Amino acid sequence: MRFTKKDILDIHSLDPAEITLILDTAMGMKEISQRPVKKVPTLRGKTIVLFFQEPSTRTKLSFEIAAKRLSADSVAIAKSGSSMAKGETLMDTVKNLEAMKPDVIVMRHASSGAAYLVANRVNCSVINAGDGIHAHPSQALLDMMSVREKKGCIKGLKLAMIGDIAHSRVARSDIIGFSKMGARVSVCAPQTMIPAGIEALGCTVASSMEACVADADVIMMLRIQKERMTDVLFPSEREYAGRFGLNSQRVALAHKDVTIMHPGPMNRGVEISSDVADGKYSMILDQVTNGVALRMALYYLVAGGSRHADTD
Amino acid sequence: MRFTKKDILDIHSLDPAEITLILDTAMGMKEISQRPVKKVPTLRGKTIVLFFQEPSTRTKLSFEIAAKRLSADSVAIAKSGSSMAKGETLMDTVKNLEAMKPDVIVMRHASSGAAYLVANRVNCSVINAGDGIHAHPSQALLDMMSVREKKGCIKGLKLAMIGDIAHSRVARSDIIGFSKMGARVSVCAPQTMIPAGIEALGCTVASSMEACVADADVIMMLRIQKERMTDVLFPSEREYAGRFGLNSQRVALAHKDVTIMHPGPMNRGVEISSDVADGKYSMILDQVTNGVALRMALYYLVAGGSRHADTD
Amino acid sequence: MRFTKKDILDIHSLDPAEITLILDTAMGMKEISQRPVKKVPTLRGKTIVLFFQEPSTRTKLSFEIAAKRLSADSVAIAKSGSSMAKGETLMDTVKNLEAMKPDVIVMRHASSGAAYLVANRVNCSVINAGDGIHAHPSQALLDMMSVREKKGCIKGLKLAMIGDIAHSRVARSDIIGFSKMGARVSVCAPQTMIPAGIEALGCTVASSMEACVADADVIMMLRIQKERMTDVLFPSEREYAGRFGLNSQRVALAHKDVTIMHPGPMNRGVEISSDVADGKYSMILDQVTNGVALRMALYYLVAGGSRHADTD
Repeated sequence: MRFTKKDILDIHSLDPAEITLILDTAMGMKEISQRPVKKVPTLRGKTIVLFFQEPSTRTKLSFEIAAKRLSADSVAIAKSGSSMAKGETLMDTVKNLEAMKPDVIVMRHASSGAAYLVANRVNCSVINAGDGIHAHPSQALLDMMSVREKKGCIKGLKLAMIGDIAHSRVARSDIIGFSKMGARVSVCAPQTMIPAGIEALGCTVASSMEACVADADVIMMLRIQKERMTDVLFPSEREYAGRFGLNSQRVALAHKDVTIMHPGPMNRGVEISSDVADGKYSMILDQVTNGVALRMALYYLVAGGSRHADTD
Repeated sequence: MRFTKKDILDIHSLDPAEITLILDTAMGMKEISQRPVKKVPTLRGKTIVLFFQEPSTRTKLSFEIAAKRLSADSVAIAKSGSSMAKGETLMDTVKNLEAMKPDVIVMRHASSGAAYLVANRVNCSVINAGDGIHAHPSQALLDMMSVREKKGCIKGLKLAMIGDIAHSRVARSDIIGFSKMGARVSVCAPQTMIPAGIEALGCTVASSMEACVADADVIMMLRIQKERMTDVLFPSEREYAGRFGLNSQRVALAHKDVTIMHPGPMNRGVEISSDVADGKYSMILDQVTNGVALRMALYYLVAGGSRHADTD
Repeated sequence: MRFTKKDILDIHSLDPAEITLILDTAMGMKEISQRPVKKVPTLRGKTIVLFFQEPSTRTKLSFEIAAKRLSADSVAIAKSGSSMAKGETLMDTVKNLEAMKPDVIVMRHASSGAAYLVANRVNCSVINAGDGIHAHPSQALLDMMSVREKKGCIKGLKLAMIGDIAHSRVARSDIIGFSKMGARVSVCAPQTMIPAGIEALGCTVASSMEACVADADVIMMLRIQKERMTDVLFPSEREYAGRFGLNSQRVALAHKDVTIMHPGPMNRGVEISSDVADGKYSMILDQVTNGVALRMALYYLVAGGSRHADTD
């Protein structure tokens, strides 16, 4: 099969066969990071621009390391010190980037939909590394990769997702992706953190955290932003942890081989207890390892794979 | 011909033959960015330090991409997080950089003349990427490259330049460069934005924007910094645009094959209207593309070209 | 001899044979930076993370250039824009870094001991690039390299160190290192800048600056942080310079072939006069040159040297 998409903007526009191709490619890439010389010349002479307009450690670093492991040249531009601070429009900034002939622009932006605007206007590939509260496809793909690696397949699994669904682009992309691949997704959150109509993405809303995690094969915790807590009338982190935090008692309600995930960064003692985060069911750090491989796969498929080399 | 200068500090010190060599070399470099593998090993093992003490997106990125396309190693040091914040003098910082054995220091600094001070004290090459309001030679060279590419030659053309001449290092370097290469340069700006004696650089001052653009082969708009507007007694951006902005009516006064340029970042609707910026005469984005090639040429000529390889 | 340590955390834990091996390796690396192609493929495919949680110019740049000269891939993460700003613990940040499979983490942190915590928890190598006021081993090693290169050996030399001993990790590491290699170390500082019990590290405390520098083979000046001056009841920089600054009169008290050192950045006119800093005895810039070679040696020994390649 040949990957024909120019851009990776969301999970919605990828069909199951494309998702499977991405995950298969990523599994092949994973081995490279385990070699003594963890680098292949596949994308030598390709230019990748990391255009992050919101703070990021692990996502940006993951995309940067992925580029280097494929021998691509990566350059970063930050919001501070950029022409946008001088009043340039987003589109002018991006057209300027394009004029320097990159192969891929990896882009994070505070506005939902920003990556679409850009992708429609440039000839190079665009990978959405997070746009507002809308989508974060590489995170969802690495989550699917991690679950498939651990469980063998995604179809038929029950995934429980707990936390601030309303403000999480990770949640949206994961709900769409896992349900598309045949998992049942159950979500749970304080009332104000569940957007109306979320079921349309392919999940059900659980009545309690206990119901959500019951018999779950995978529990995915979401980061709670402390500044949002007051909005939802939780007087303290402890009270939030009491109702929506994952601890070993709640893990015990899940399937006995449950897998615990978190996109990071974690608030230990708030949405997840330390013993669970560091416990035997946790694959939180495996997610990070897989993230590099997954991003290598995305680069390869849009900039160096069959999309470019093959005639059929 | 052999390029013998150690540094690229301004346009003034380059003679027409040197400028022509630089532009010819840049045209050869341009093709590299169009290849599937857009990289050559020419400067492998050379170290380039990007020392930008003022904010920059496109210039810094352009220098960085140019370095990577020639396989040089580039490292950046920023003002924030630097020893200069601890009270170190500019010269000590630079002598420290030199001690790490770079081949080229690309330097931007708020003080006019800073690059000269540095170049006189270090053995490696220095490329001035903008010093105060004094000079920005790589911008002027890419502008000349772009005009020559479009028009075939520079000699005999009329170039109209409109905007804040007084505070623009781009203006100074372009006036000197284009007039040296045989173009007639006409400038126009609000009274307070034309420095006394500017004609000595090789231009004439037009009585009105209409007179400036009349029969022009090239119109080069300069960025107006919004914070300077109040200084020149313009109550609004609209009023500035009315008198000194480029719109399609004013373009119609120019030569029928006029070329529109802007060094960026643009204030759309202020110094240039969007239909002109995006219109068929605009080569604003070509300037950006050529900027990478031009900077590759500068690196090559000072650090890897005939200056080093030949015996005569 | 084979280097078997995973990490470089301090000078204390290196024995004289290990220090000698590091210095010998660094002397071999130094030649690479003098070649036209100043790069070798030794660490191709290795990933080095520069994790600097405090401002730095020269140290970070030195580690970055050293990585590139060995063909390693280096990536940097800064404090600003990092997950730690979102409340992540240091250990979670580091475990996330480790999950991306780096070979070396170079780390600077405001807390004394931070590098130890990290090194104990990750499988990759950790190089301490400065932790609080505790240790800065690569600086001490490059200082020893510089002295050995100049004087032939370290044993038997008298080293005078003047400045803010109490708040200097450079001072601690240098005192331990030079005394371990057989030098006599004499220190001098305002009373409040000498920590009680400093003699236990292997130095003597001189009664005056004159006594300290008398017959010294090496004078190492330390940076005085201006904000600390008021703490020690010095009303002015001039008064500090008068009692503890190095000038040519005081240099004359030392051995006739004395070597002057400073880790930078310097406060000219405060702890050191300009004529001494730039004079014939100064090897301040040689320290910077040697710093690149020394860091190449550290990378090589922990990530690419005999520790990995040999069976015995």
